[in-house]
Amino acid sequence: MSHDFKRIGIVGKYHGSSCSGAIRRLAEHLAARGHEVMLAAHTAEVCRIYELPSATLHELGRRVDLAVVIGGDGTLLNVARNLVDHGVPLIGVNQGRLGFLADVPVDGMLPILDRMLAGAYVAEERILLTARVERGEAVHRSTHAFNDVVVSKSTLGRLIEFEVYVDDQFVYSQRADGMVVSTPTGSTAYALSAGGPILHPTLEAFVLIPICPHTLSARPIAVNSSSEIEINLIHAHDARVHFDGQEHADLELGDRVVIRRAVNTVRLLHPQGHNYYDTLRQKLHWGEKLS
Amino acid sequence: MSHDFKRIGIVGKYHGSSCSGAIRRLAEHLAARGHEVMLAAHTAEVCRIYELPSATLHELGRRVDLAVVIGGDGTLLNVARNLVDHGVPLIGVNQGRLGFLADVPVDGMLPILDRMLAGAYVAEERILLTARVERGEAVHRSTHAFNDVVVSKSTLGRLIEFEVYVDDQFVYSQRADGMVVSTPTGSTAYALSAGGPILHPTLEAFVLIPICPHTLSARPIAVNSSSEIEINLIHAHDARVHFDGQEHADLELGDRVVIRRAVNTVRLLHPQGHNYYDTLRQKLHWGEKLS
Amino acid sequence: MSHDFKRIGIVGKYHGSSCSGAIRRLAEHLAARGHEVMLAAHTAEVCRIYELPSATLHELGRRVDLAVVIGGDGTLLNVARNLVDHGVPLIGVNQGRLGFLADVPVDGMLPILDRMLAGAYVAEERILLTARVERGEAVHRSTHAFNDVVVSKSTLGRLIEFEVYVDDQFVYSQRADGMVVSTPTGSTAYALSAGGPILHPTLEAFVLIPICPHTLSARPIAVNSSSEIEINLIHAHDARVHFDGQEHADLELGDRVVIRRAVNTVRLLHPQGHNYYDTLRQKLHWGEKLS
Amino acid sequence: MSHDFKRIGIVGKYHGSSCSGAIRRLAEHLAARGHEVMLAAHTAEVCRIYELPSATLHELGRRVDLAVVIGGDGTLLNVARNLVDHGVPLIGVNQGRLGFLADVPVDGMLPILDRMLAGAYVAEERILLTARVERGEAVHRSTHAFNDVVVSKSTLGRLIEFEVYVDDQFVYSQRADGMVVSTPTGSTAYALSAGGPILHPTLEAFVLIPICPHTLSARPIAVNSSSEIEINLIHAHDARVHFDGQEHADLELGDRVVIRRAVNTVRLLHPQGHNYYDTLRQKLHWGEKLS
Repeated sequence: MSHDFKRIGIVGKYHGSSCSGAIRRLAEHLAARGHEVMLAAHTAEVCRIYELPSATLHELGRRVDLAVVIGGDGTLLNVARNLVDHGVPLIGVNQGRLGFLADVPVDGMLPILDRMLAGAYVAEERILLTARVERGEAVHRSTHAFNDVVVSKSTLGRLIEFEVYVDDQFVYSQRADGMVVSTPTGSTAYALSAGGPILHPTLEAFVLIPICPHTLSARPIAVNSSSEIEINLIHAHDARVHFDGQEHADLELGDRVVIRRAVNTVRLLHPQGHNYYDTLRQKLHWGEKLS
Repeated sequence: MSHDFKRIGIVGKYHGSSCSGAIRRLAEHLAARGHEVMLAAHTAEVCRIYELPSATLHELGRRVDLAVVIGGDGTLLNVARNLVDHGVPLIGVNQGRLGFLADVPVDGMLPILDRMLAGAYVAEERILLTARVERGEAVHRSTHAFNDVVVSKSTLGRLIEFEVYVDDQFVYSQRADGMVVSTPTGSTAYALSAGGPILHPTLEAFVLIPICPHTLSARPIAVNSSSEIEINLIHAHDARVHFDGQEHADLELGDRVVIRRAVNTVRLLHPQGHNYYDTLRQKLHWGEKLS
Repeated sequence: MSHDFKRIGIVGKYHGSSCSGAIRRLAEHLAARGHEVMLAAHTAEVCRIYELPSATLHELGRRVDLAVVIGGDGTLLNVARNLVDHGVPLIGVNQGRLGFLADVPVDGMLPILDRMLAGAYVAEERILLTARVERGEAVHRSTHAFNDVVVSKSTLGRLIEFEVYVDDQFVYSQRADGMVVSTPTGSTAYALSAGGPILHPTLEAFVLIPICPHTLSARPIAVNSSSEIEINLIHAHDARVHFDGQEHADLELGDRVVIRRAVNTVRLLHPQGHNYYDTLRQKLHWGEKLS
Repeated sequence: MSHDFKRIGIVGKYHGSSCSGAIRRLAEHLAARGHEVMLAAHTAEVCRIYELPSATLHELGRRVDLAVVIGGDGTLLNVARNLVDHGVPLIGVNQGRLGFLADVPVDGMLPILDRMLAGAYVAEERILLTARVERGEAVHRSTHAFNDVVVSKSTLGRLIEFEVYVDDQFVYSQRADGMVVSTPTGSTAYALSAGGPILHPTLEAFVLIPICPHTLSARPIAVNSSSEIEINLIHAHDARVHFDGQEHADLELGDRVVIRRAVNTVRLLHPQGHNYYDTLRQKLHWGEKLS
């Protein structure tokens, strides 16, 4: 059912032209098969492909039926965050190393993509966070995060103190290096390094993980994705909030970082036969069958 | 709306008559206020209360509109497992130490219960596990668990080897002391000792935690409560499966422990103003507000 | 200086004759080079080698200048424990998988051993534990452990309660699945699964690790090897103490497990170029250099 | 044996005059009992005590037989680092909260100090780290640390990549938020938050703990205090090295942080009856005896 994906966007890495060849190959292939192809503007520029239509990410989001992202998980994270409100399904192509999200290998991508465009794919919906920084009465900053929102110490490297509320109920105070609020998607990224559990992508849950907490009794806690999570900065020499490790904002004392589930979800398409646990095992170097 | 709970069952601890006085007091109080009161048979016997109707737990489950359980979390776990298929809501009264489940203190319980019976309560649904042990073609054992199903080494104390599948997808093999599959309710019990995260009671999730695994890369993983979890015993000198730490069965090589969400849920009633995070903080000795 | 090791003992696995060929090959090789060779009695029997002198482990310990142990780390642990008081240096030959202790591969062992017997070896001293179980006034059991002494729950699988003292100073009480007291050698074995740190073999230290403790504030603690550690069993349905996972004794309430550094050390010989961190990296699948 | 401590230095917190009263009281008391009292210059200034001799920390270190430090563990850390090469024993007085190091309570300090000055004390030696930052051929920075040397990401909050060597043997590469190298003294400070074990103060060991490592197989490792530890910064957007969380230096790619045991030790005097495990239990909120 190739006609479902009549208009296809192609997005590459923000920096570096290492995927120019692959992007050109893909664009020509799709055009030859009758798709309307549109490039992200920054991709067209970086790869010097000027003969195809191009548009900003948001414009592209309004106009295509599918976006193929070539790069790695980091690139896909960023594109997903920007396109989520346009409801465009995404396919991730990785350049070499299997990604949790970008699981089509660039070598041999064409026949795989052909099968996917013909309907042989597994679709899944992934939830995102939307976060805003409240300063007094004003909203200082507002953005999406696909992996995680991280409040942390900044330049001076001193621990920070904050209170955490869930649905206006006080959870705890922490003196710590910081605090991770992660989606299931982010649970295999920074949250895992900070000692968090893995959450299956279908879970309607977020996980809260203090980073190097001053107390011995802190433990990761997974809360319902319908919850509103609030982190109040009580004491800090300097502190920051990071979104997917790709954007950040400086925090002031008294700032409240308020985090909710974004209304829309990211629709990821995987090649048929995709199995989350296979990816986990391969990425995390888990042992194979004993028998 | 006291008439909602016309017939009320009272259940005490299985062993020990320490709560006889409280049970008698409660029974007389409820009878005086026009409720039909029924005791669990073992409670009537242990407390030597013969002037009230009594019945087996299952019979009681068929006949009452509410059960008040006096004891602690362990007693409530056991009653919940037995009554879950009767849809009887439960109130837990604790004898001294606040429980995660049994959160009405026995001292001063009467006015609290009066208010709850008049409608001033918070209700919540908790999910349970149902597990069966498959040996060859036969189902060797089948039961419910409210906290956890634990497969573990037994008498000889040697590590066991098993494979884990979720929805027929291979997850990993482990050589370990054992494996915990826990509900959100169980996530603050043994699962927490084994290094698991806390799951909010509203999560439709179970968490899988290897106990003292032989590999360094094992991490807790929370899966959707709609999943079927299978643990295949591959190698062991001896092994057991425990249900809520209250029942167990010996396992043989090749046995499969198959775990799903039970169809029915346990309905817990808490006093109005109940707050899960307050209980967490108090039980886990978490710090109070800094500001 | 081959004459330093004039008389050489050879010890194989307790069970299984898989190393018969290697043992025979080694014995003939050493005899041909002028060494007096003596087999452990059980090895002679299992491998059906009757033409060479053989003796019990302890007798062998009195009579040889060096013992070559063919098997794996488990075999070497057991031999070391039995020979420690005879001061016999040990070389460990592994059958296939690199061991922490048995680091000479059976394939190609002869030239490696020739070089070692000629003086090209790295020697290290490893400390052991000596433990006794005190019941009332009596010593109920006394033995050595090279890896660890583990007090743990037994058949019934219920947690146990115990107090820990170091040098007669109270450290803490625990309700837990058990307690590991490990040497540096054991720190990469069961202690690591239980969440303990790695201790370099040269450290004069033992590490205490509660297994699945009921409290959130427990942490591994490394104490000086000059300390006396005492574990008092306060409450348990049944409990056991395990020595290197190879021997055990049942415990009764009130039993005290008293653990000290053994007076003598095990002298391990490694091939020249041996590097502890290389072994760690290979065994624990640690990453290689980035640059 | 009061004459052992004829000349006594008094040092307060660097900032804040909250201990002025206590310092004045102590100085007068000691002078009245025949000791020569000398104040740290910054303490004299902050507390406006001009009638007593004062000197820089280093000058004071050359001239007194004992220093009493009034503040908390942070103050004592700093003083210890500065005085270690003068061999002056230290007594720590805490203002309110028991410290690991400063364990004489300011309320009621005078009789306790009198007894200590009369010889009723427990002395212990604590090891320190000495660290230098090597840039090319040059030593860019060199200092002591009593608790820990921490290499970590800095302003940008991106993970850093480094290699670790012990005694010129490659240990591992890490991509992480950072790396802690801690003394036994520091093992109950930041290292504990980062997931490290507790090391008894008598251990001749340091512990290496990656902070939020990118790999699942990293574990804390305790090495001999005779070792030289080298951390090579391989890749980073920006990175810093912190000494006791009180001083820091920016790092450049290729910088090597080389860490050894300082030649001299800090001599701490505790009141008689001091028990390390009592302090641990109290500071870490460990449970009391069950029996």
